[in-house]
Amino acid sequence: MKITSRSKESTWALIHSVSDAFSGWLLMLLIGLLAGSLAGLIDISAHWMTDLKEGVCLAGFWFNHEHCCWKSNTTFTDRDKCPEWKSWSQLIIGHGEGAFAYILNYFMYVMWALLFSLLAVLLVKGFAPYACGSGIPEIKTILSGFIIRGYLGKWTLIIKTITLVLAVSSGLSLGKEGPLVHVACCCGNILCHLFTKYRKNEAKRREVLSAAAAAGVSVAFGAPIGGVLFSLEEVSYYFPLKTLWRSFFAALVAAFTLRSINPFGNSRLVLFYVEFHMPWHLLELIPFILLGIFGGLWGAFFIRSNIAWCRRRKTTKLGKYPVLEVFVVTAITAVLAFPNEYTRMSTSELISELFNDCGILDSSKLCEYVNDFNSTKGDDLPDRAAGPGVYTAMWQLALALIMKVFITIFTFGMKVPSGLFIPSMAVGAIVGRLLGVGMEQLAFYHHDWVIFSGWCSQGADCITPGLYAMVGAAACLGGVTRMTVSLVVIMFELTGGLEYIVPLMAAAMTSKWVADAIGREGIYDAHIRLNGYPFLEAKEEFSHKTLAMDVMRPRRNDPPLTVITQDSMTVEDVEAIINETTYSGYPVVVSRESQRLVGFVLRRDLIISIENARKKQDGIVSTSIIYFTDHSPPLPPSSPSMLKLRSILDLSPFTVTDQTPMEIVVDIFRKLGLRQCLVTHNGKLLGIITKKDVLKHIAQLANQDPDSILFN
Amino acid sequence: MKITSRSKESTWALIHSVSDAFSGWLLMLLIGLLAGSLAGLIDISAHWMTDLKEGVCLAGFWFNHEHCCWKSNTTFTDRDKCPEWKSWSQLIIGHGEGAFAYILNYFMYVMWALLFSLLAVLLVKGFAPYACGSGIPEIKTILSGFIIRGYLGKWTLIIKTITLVLAVSSGLSLGKEGPLVHVACCCGNILCHLFTKYRKNEAKRREVLSAAAAAGVSVAFGAPIGGVLFSLEEVSYYFPLKTLWRSFFAALVAAFTLRSINPFGNSRLVLFYVEFHMPWHLLELIPFILLGIFGGLWGAFFIRSNIAWCRRRKTTKLGKYPVLEVFVVTAITAVLAFPNEYTRMSTSELISELFNDCGILDSSKLCEYVNDFNSTKGDDLPDRAAGPGVYTAMWQLALALIMKVFITIFTFGMKVPSGLFIPSMAVGAIVGRLLGVGMEQLAFYHHDWVIFSGWCSQGADCITPGLYAMVGAAACLGGVTRMTVSLVVIMFELTGGLEYIVPLMAAAMTSKWVADAIGREGIYDAHIRLNGYPFLEAKEEFSHKTLAMDVMRPRRNDPPLTVITQDSMTVEDVEAIINETTYSGYPVVVSRESQRLVGFVLRRDLIISIENARKKQDGIVSTSIIYFTDHSPPLPPSSPSMLKLRSILDLSPFTVTDQTPMEIVVDIFRKLGLRQCLVTHNGKLLGIITKKDVLKHIAQLANQDPDSILFN
Repeated sequence: MKITSRSKESTWALIHSVSDAFSGWLLMLLIGLLAGSLAGLIDISAHWMTDLKEGVCLAGFWFNHEHCCWKSNTTFTDRDKCPEWKSWSQLIIGHGEGAFAYILNYFMYVMWALLFSLLAVLLVKGFAPYACGSGIPEIKTILSGFIIRGYLGKWTLIIKTITLVLAVSSGLSLGKEGPLVHVACCCGNILCHLFTKYRKNEAKRREVLSAAAAAGVSVAFGAPIGGVLFSLEEVSYYFPLKTLWRSFFAALVAAFTLRSINPFGNSRLVLFYVEFHMPWHLLELIPFILLGIFGGLWGAFFIRSNIAWCRRRKTTKLGKYPVLEVFVVTAITAVLAFPNEYTRMSTSELISELFNDCGILDSSKLCEYVNDFNSTKGDDLPDRAAGPGVYTAMWQLALALIMKVFITIFTFGMKVPSGLFIPSMAVGAIVGRLLGVGMEQLAFYHHDWVIFSGWCSQGADCITPGLYAMVGAAACLGGVTRMTVSLVVIMFELTGGLEYIVPLMAAAMTSKWVADAIGREGIYDAHIRLNGYPFLEAKEEFSHKTLAMDVMRPRRNDPPLTVITQDSMTVEDVEAIINETTYSGYPVVVSRESQRLVGFVLRRDLIISIENARKKQDGIVSTSIIYFTDHSPPLPPSSPSMLKLRSILDLSPFTVTDQTPMEIVVDIFRKLGLRQCLVTHNGKLLGIITKKDVLKHIAQLANQDPDSILFN
Repeated sequence: MKITSRSKESTWALIHSVSDAFSGWLLMLLIGLLAGSLAGLIDISAHWMTDLKEGVCLAGFWFNHEHCCWKSNTTFTDRDKCPEWKSWSQLIIGHGEGAFAYILNYFMYVMWALLFSLLAVLLVKGFAPYACGSGIPEIKTILSGFIIRGYLGKWTLIIKTITLVLAVSSGLSLGKEGPLVHVACCCGNILCHLFTKYRKNEAKRREVLSAAAAAGVSVAFGAPIGGVLFSLEEVSYYFPLKTLWRSFFAALVAAFTLRSINPFGNSRLVLFYVEFHMPWHLLELIPFILLGIFGGLWGAFFIRSNIAWCRRRKTTKLGKYPVLEVFVVTAITAVLAFPNEYTRMSTSELISELFNDCGILDSSKLCEYVNDFNSTKGDDLPDRAAGPGVYTAMWQLALALIMKVFITIFTFGMKVPSGLFIPSMAVGAIVGRLLGVGMEQLAFYHHDWVIFSGWCSQGADCITPGLYAMVGAAACLGGVTRMTVSLVVIMFELTGGLEYIVPLMAAAMTSKWVADAIGREGIYDAHIRLNGYPFLEAKEEFSHKTLAMDVMRPRRNDPPLTVITQDSMTVEDVEAIINETTYSGYPVVVSRESQRLVGFVLRRDLIISIENARKKQDGIVSTSIIYFTDHSPPLPPSSPSMLKLRSILDLSPFTVTDQTPMEIVVDIFRKLGLRQCLVTHNGKLLGIITKKDVLKHIAQLANQDPDSILFN
């Protein structure tokens, strides 16, 4: 009998544990599928709407330029021109030549851009204010244990998805990568509600969100491993190994789903596939490090200017007119962007073109070299003299660079969904390509210089400008976000270039060092601080010699700590404490004299319990004794009935002694995700340290204004 | 004045912080350089000595076979035969043909193998007993906070490096990957002594060891990112983000150093570079998952058999004759290996050949297909009928598989350095190649079957047997080690095949699930448990409902906890406690009656302090009062002088309440790396929980023998 029941029990336990483990994987699968599908949808819509700014397809208005021309039977080399695709001037005035047609196209371009961006900002403002920005600072804060209600809800998901498409299509200087992380996290949060295990357990839900963030980056770049590392390095606060494995699964499913949808029509997982023919030379590390320095400087400059501008938006009247702001920025962007072909094309197309190594058949202006077919053998093109096209391209790229550098500062932080990855990479890629072409021409004209001897003789293909663009992009992205390993992995997953880890690493490292020397915080941390989120940075070491007693409240001259005794206070007394103070919880002690700690009770629980008891429990009056002990205290029989509240008492509050170094206290807060911790001395309760106290203390020691650490 | 001193101070602080940060990076650089150089040295020596078993170079005995034939001017296609390279029979009897020459070569092969392996085991036995095995279980344990003196010392480093070369050269079924991690960790530990910061701080040293482990895997496979992830996933216990970044740097420097040494003579960073021409088809996931199932089964089978054998070695007389054991296993291995060319070659060469996709010019037996040059276009070879060479190779591979499967069980755990990666991968690669060739022939002969229609028509190149070998290798490695993300990353860094993440992932995942279903532990955890190291697994969730009071000592009927009072015990009393008990530390309380906790004092510190005081301090006798308070307690003037020991008192011991769920206690032990934790109730000290108690409790709940958790 016992054996049967035991085996029944164990079968049941087995089924339970299998379904338990299974639900986690199922959830990951669903997150991957949903995130991948949404990303595909966003890609396709944004592509179509971006092209809509320039013209429309007669074969069906829902085709984008490329698809439209696939339908037609023209040759493939001239894929941009096909009879079915009409620019707006062709559609309206019947031809595309001449100044009037140009102005008409220009006008239509700006109008569409304004329409898209205004629609985006109005939707965000009207339906889901949380849908703006990149979302990564907030997700970091949420994963560190803070709750922002509705930030990952279904309205945010719907509106963010729609407005992201609008914002990207409007041609503003922003990317879709950060917002995609937010979208994926919304998916994760919503799907959690399907499973009891995750709906009820906040810690487990945070692990799911970490995995969802990985899936988001995975679909943003087609980089599943990079996504997992990004989540680990940049987003997550606590990343257990089980999450690593599940994140990878979610990221892979998402990437695979996206590939099946195939929004780019090339069935490649990677966004900017490159194939370089030549290995790099050790001496090239010098320009790569120079790119790293530029990346670091640009990153630091960008963060400072952007934070200054965002602070101005918060503190002046500017913040009251978000729609006007978006209108003005979009108008300026569109007006400046149209005349220059490198800003008119979408930023990811620009990056793709900059990363590209010129082949023989490439018809782009960047590849207009003086061909010397005698020295060409096979696929390998030797370094050649730049033709007039390259010089024109250089000028246009320089102008594009200046525009991007400035406009991005004003764009990031507006009330539309906006990511930073793509604009940062574009800035770096332009600088890299400029430097790369410069190096190439230098090597071509001066191949007799000592530094070029040996590896760059005449007729050799020794400099690959596309590689410089790639390294530059990594450097700038690193300067802004301060990512390290995940950056390198994302870059080489993006481009498929495993052989270029060392150049990427050199640039990323230089960039991080330079940027860190100027300002310690990456853009996300800076925005967290700007918004005053209670985020306890896990990367910095706390190296001061203060003790818990220096940080705890009450301070030396303050009134003593507000406590509740376990069996001697009346309902009235407790209600008085609740009304007089605003603390979110109170320690419960054996008696005021002994100050021996019993537990911790939350203000919210206390209020609800007393209210309920007064309503439903007979005989509970203001003079009723509240007790937290197991058994009711002995009282005279005449006294009113007592209220037992042991069930709401947290019997295992965290304690440290007053002599504990703050280094250890900070460590405990970080690793265990605490909100408060009680301080004792020789077994007696002495005070309390909350997360806010810790944050204030850290800010104080860093000579910052401690009062900026408040959520507002 | 004040300003000057302040600016001086801040300059000093700046210099200090720069040199502080710099020392960390310098240390990483040194570790990378040293680990890379040692790996290069090991590679070159092992290569040379492996070839020495078959013959010698007349142009210079220090050349290996390949280098020897480079010197000669023969054509490149027949690189194996050159006049300078003489097999032993050629050298001794003047020719290499006939039965006698074969037997002579056979004999020499076995003799060299025995010589190498005996030398290895004698060196390990005589000079550094810790140099045996792979070292990863011990490093995991050390990183979890346990100290094994001398395990990472210079003798271990020297002997392990030498014996690793010998063991690999002897042709035993073992790899150099695990031991290289140990070698790198030794480098890290030794180099730590150069920097005060790391010499003195154990926690910081552990971070350095994590980075060194990453460098070790990085040079073992030429996979820097995989190395970092391996360290994160498999080896490290606590992996802060700063370590991630530094690990990556160390891993990259190490890989770059190794590449500069260029031991394989192909200037590739990756060990088994592959280039497959065809993408995989979705239906191929079925065989890939089959390979995953095989990998899981083999992993579980291997772990069970190996642990059973190792337990027998520990418990029976077998363990007393390590030299004999190595002799017998080497003899059997060498005798069985020589006749079969796939076991005679080194295991990494075998894997490399199995991963290879057959080109037109490949002359290996595995590529002896029936050529139909009419249907060949360019580089793409269509699926072809297998020739007789392929069938012979299949048989030989099957025999090699059986031999490797069994001999590896007995090899891993012998008293020589031995890694598991390469043998596991070899087993998987053989099975994968067999399945791949089978699939290929199936597709060739039955391309009209429904499952092949569409993607495998006649004359198409649709099955790549090399890819199957790669997937099989990943599956088996995953089954044995239970690695996940790091496995996939290592595999694709090893082979450069970014497009094959999904097949690798599918196989790795199936393999892990299947293996986990049979036995929860990977090989390293199994060896940790076998050796009884006090290792608190961080991957498993603790999901039982027990409380701290169920685990703490003293138990209900035990005598009360041994405590020391803060100001009332004499030297005699304390010495009596020290002699009567074996605990490594004692709680200090205000008084026996109040049991209010003051701090924790270590046994070692107590003994040393009392001894010192008795020797050097006048008036300290057996009746002297020991006090831990700030001020001495009031005592009659006639009493002997007192001993103040506040300086050795840890004033911030960790406490939890008796009602704390064990789930949280386990979490605290893991995350904060505690060795013990005190238990209180209402502010009174009640008991203590040590790491060993936690481990025993976990073992008990898992129905295991709790007494196996002891270090022996």
